[in-house]
Amino acid sequence: MPMSNVCEVLTLADICAYLKERDNYVVLTHTNPDGDTLGSAYGLKLGLKKLGKRVQVVCCDEIPHKYDYFIDDSECDFVPETVVAVDVADIKLLGDLYERFEGRIDLNIDHHVSNTHYANRLYLDADAAACAECVYEILDELGIEFDRDIANALYTGLSTDTGCFKYGNVTDRTHRIAAKLYRIGVDASEINRIMFDTKSKSRVQMEMMVLNSAEFHFEDRCMVMAITLDVQRKTGCSRSDMEGVPPMSRSVEGVLAGVTLKENREGEFKISLRTYAPLDASAICGKLGGGGHKAAAGCTVIGSLEEAKSAILAAVKEALEELDAGSDIT
Amino acid sequence: MPMSNVCEVLTLADICAYLKERDNYVVLTHTNPDGDTLGSAYGLKLGLKKLGKRVQVVCCDEIPHKYDYFIDDSECDFVPETVVAVDVADIKLLGDLYERFEGRIDLNIDHHVSNTHYANRLYLDADAAACAECVYEILDELGIEFDRDIANALYTGLSTDTGCFKYGNVTDRTHRIAAKLYRIGVDASEINRIMFDTKSKSRVQMEMMVLNSAEFHFEDRCMVMAITLDVQRKTGCSRSDMEGVPPMSRSVEGVLAGVTLKENREGEFKISLRTYAPLDASAICGKLGGGGHKAAAGCTVIGSLEEAKSAILAAVKEALEELDAGSDIT
Repeated sequence: MPMSNVCEVLTLADICAYLKERDNYVVLTHTNPDGDTLGSAYGLKLGLKKLGKRVQVVCCDEIPHKYDYFIDDSECDFVPETVVAVDVADIKLLGDLYERFEGRIDLNIDHHVSNTHYANRLYLDADAAACAECVYEILDELGIEFDRDIANALYTGLSTDTGCFKYGNVTDRTHRIAAKLYRIGVDASEINRIMFDTKSKSRVQMEMMVLNSAEFHFEDRCMVMAITLDVQRKTGCSRSDMEGVPPMSRSVEGVLAGVTLKENREGEFKISLRTYAPLDASAICGKLGGGGHKAAAGCTVIGSLEEAKSAILAAVKEALEELDAGSDIT
Repeated sequence: MPMSNVCEVLTLADICAYLKERDNYVVLTHTNPDGDTLGSAYGLKLGLKKLGKRVQVVCCDEIPHKYDYFIDDSECDFVPETVVAVDVADIKLLGDLYERFEGRIDLNIDHHVSNTHYANRLYLDADAAACAECVYEILDELGIEFDRDIANALYTGLSTDTGCFKYGNVTDRTHRIAAKLYRIGVDASEINRIMFDTKSKSRVQMEMMVLNSAEFHFEDRCMVMAITLDVQRKTGCSRSDMEGVPPMSRSVEGVLAGVTLKENREGEFKISLRTYAPLDASAICGKLGGGGHKAAAGCTVIGSLEEAKSAILAAVKEALEELDAGSDIT
């Protein structure tokens, strides 16, 4: 097994040459798989199959049923030769597959600027709104004829990673690719209904309990919401029911910092922070040992709800005070 | 004043010739103006100004402040010559301007298939997801150089009429136009934040009260929500705070018919119905004297909340029973 620490950075032409040459692919997604890692993996699988390649997708976690419409379960017997990780910025995000594949990732296709260059070869496009954008470019360059299944997989990646073309990561290319996928017959409105407009009753109940107990701090510039184990038990909400809650904490007028505390287990809270500029979520969470992006970051705090809340509120307060001091000077 | 009943249907070339020839424009929007009628009107104004034309936009209602970023208030003194209505499917939608302009609309630019052909000239593109798509095509055909202000106005129309590219009215053209507007430098993520991700505290409180009292009927296939005068008073929510509530009624898994009852005044309810196929919202509301589209329709019922609810529930029940009978046969 190659255990090389050198990561070769590939151009679009390089990766296409490599993909044509190799066969017997295992495509890995990240843990707790979302629409982009899955859409990219299955889009790539369906595309490579059109080149006559053998491909299987492997994920350490169960794939939520809402993605069934593009999951290609066709299996074929082969000895894995080429390991590709898609939308996986750090090898640790492989979850339980980490140890099995450490040092053995032949190719990594990604769009995270924070990519740790853990693979032997890397195709990175940090301007891509979604990893599915990278996969689209690759399949297009390979001259593969897109069909509706590929379109549905890639559109799911584009759409879910951009909040349906809402966020700041969208570029004209994102829309150009979407236009192309429409021409191929993508089931976009149905996909968006499943991804954005369908909530379970448990989810609705959970949202209500969480909003009922929401708090506002620092002249309403900080909103705090908690999904305690108690709330999770009472509403019976699943992990996928809890996705998409953190952006709600930033959606009230005037709020600059939205905090969501999710109790993972008794006395352990995963904190998600969403901010608006100039507040830097990554810097704030960094004070508690976490990190992320400017507008979205996270950290984990051990302690009671009150302790976790105090810790993150202290960090937010400091950032708001720096902001106020700054605006006094200018 | 011409009171002709003949409505000349224009091609793209026709309307461009007409717009070049005329001057001193008054552009009318529909009542209770939304992002598409306003984005189309101001996009057209800014575009025609680039041809050296004099243009003013007139709306019978106050324009919500959230649209300030593309409102062009520059006035110039001129005697109105050419009256254009944009995104106005029926002359009655001019509200208080109806009487003043009846029979005097020189040109109507619209995308509603239900357009009543009330104007002297009509440019209708029923395939356009938003009227802003029509205005884009017109300005493009006129060879106008787009700038960021025009892009912001037109993008607002595209984005708000499609739920940010989420709904079934989106086509590849919608995305192609969006891509073009990105290249011009549209402030898309900021616009989407204002349009989709910013709620007032009153709105959040109203949503919670409405969801707290939501009811489920007919094996959870129908969800009913009420925004009573009491809720409106207690939360202090404005008319614009109440926009976007009806789609919530259809967002719970398994719901085929979502009913929102908004109490307009003591004993009068505006009912909004949202359905999923095969339920036909327009047919159901038709039974109560209303109408609309297949997936979104409305009607007004005089009576108490209980009476209004019974009336619409009876109509929904009938439709569901027809559906069940139909599926027994097949």
